[in-house]
Amino acid sequence: MNRIEPRSGVALKLAKGQKLTVCDPMGQQVSDLVAYNADDVREVISNGRTFDYEETIQLGWGNRLWSNRSNPMLTIVTDTAQRHDFLLTPCCEETFRHFYPDKPVHRGCFGNLAEALEPYGIEPESIPTAFNIFMNVPVDGKSGLLAVKPPTSKPGDKLELRAEMDLVIGLTACSAYDSNGGSFKPIDYEVS
Amino acid sequence: MNRIEPRSGVALKLAKGQKLTVCDPMGQQVSDLVAYNADDVREVISNGRTFDYEETIQLGWGNRLWSNRSNPMLTIVTDTAQRHDFLLTPCCEETFRHFYPDKPVHRGCFGNLAEALEPYGIEPESIPTAFNIFMNVPVDGKSGLLAVKPPTSKPGDKLELRAEMDLVIGLTACSAYDSNGGSFKPIDYEVS
Repeated sequence: MNRIEPRSGVALKLAKGQKLTVCDPMGQQVSDLVAYNADDVREVISNGRTFDYEETIQLGWGNRLWSNRSNPMLTIVTDTAQRHDFLLTPCCEETFRHFYPDKPVHRGCFGNLAEALEPYGIEPESIPTAFNIFMNVPVDGKSGLLAVKPPTSKPGDKLELRAEMDLVIGLTACSAYDSNGGSFKPIDYEVS
Repeated sequence: MNRIEPRSGVALKLAKGQKLTVCDPMGQQVSDLVAYNADDVREVISNGRTFDYEETIQLGWGNRLWSNRSNPMLTIVTDTAQRHDFLLTPCCEETFRHFYPDKPVHRGCFGNLAEALEPYGIEPESIPTAFNIFMNVPVDGKSGLLAVKPPTSKPGDKLELRAEMDLVIGLTACSAYDSNGGSFKPIDYEVS
């Protein structure tokens, strides 16, 4: 397993058919994931297309994550946590100022992803709503109101994704207070 | 009022402070809206940033629609229908093939938006999840399952949005069967 240190991020290539395992080694830690077609990074993971084709906002085992060009990018083949979010964007300087005005501003998952993805020719504006592994965002179906709650993930929980095309992946150990139950922990990952 | 004919779309400029009124003249008709910063079209409307800052997936009177750079783009100042969607992407050839395999394929809101936005230098890949005015997509908060139901909008229902920056707007009369209660009607709009 490779380790992503707290409040940091990486980018990596994932070939079609390879599997990416994302593990929460200590529990209650979110990992933001974004994905791009390695041959044309204008094709990018899309929460809206995924909600269209999977007909749910709560993705888990068996669901596929789709691109803005209506192609499946990743299939969830293992999911021990069963609680993830695909509604909210990576934390960034502006979200720190907005939600934590009394705390130091951090560049967040957005800044970490932007730096990691730059060598692949991916601009900050091309970072979409992320698939937020282990993030716990209950939605009230009647009012639409949402809340960011501590993750329900336990130490060792993991999500395994199979690549359906050659991909560039961005992956973080999330930097925001509320998303991670108030403390910042590492994320482990492995390509197989 | 200007009219968008059934299953078509337009693009227009909206200056900061101007208001865009979108009216459903016959009822049960969806209109997909996308927005770009007129001075730099890499800044684009974002459902994820909007859900972040507004803390709800059900946007209505008083809510703001935010950009991928964390700036408010539009404020909802009138909302007589009180039911809209910001989860799903514009219908396109692939969604017609997927959901309506026995019906003729249409280029959908996606194709209509792509053509209308091209003169502004906006590529098809830059069309994000749209704000789907009058679209009725109930979500089961427990399971996450969603459904596309007929709009609840009545003839004459309207949504009025105030521009918070100079914008390029894409706007359609939606082309998909389920989203519009099975028939395709016009959408009226006015800039003031």
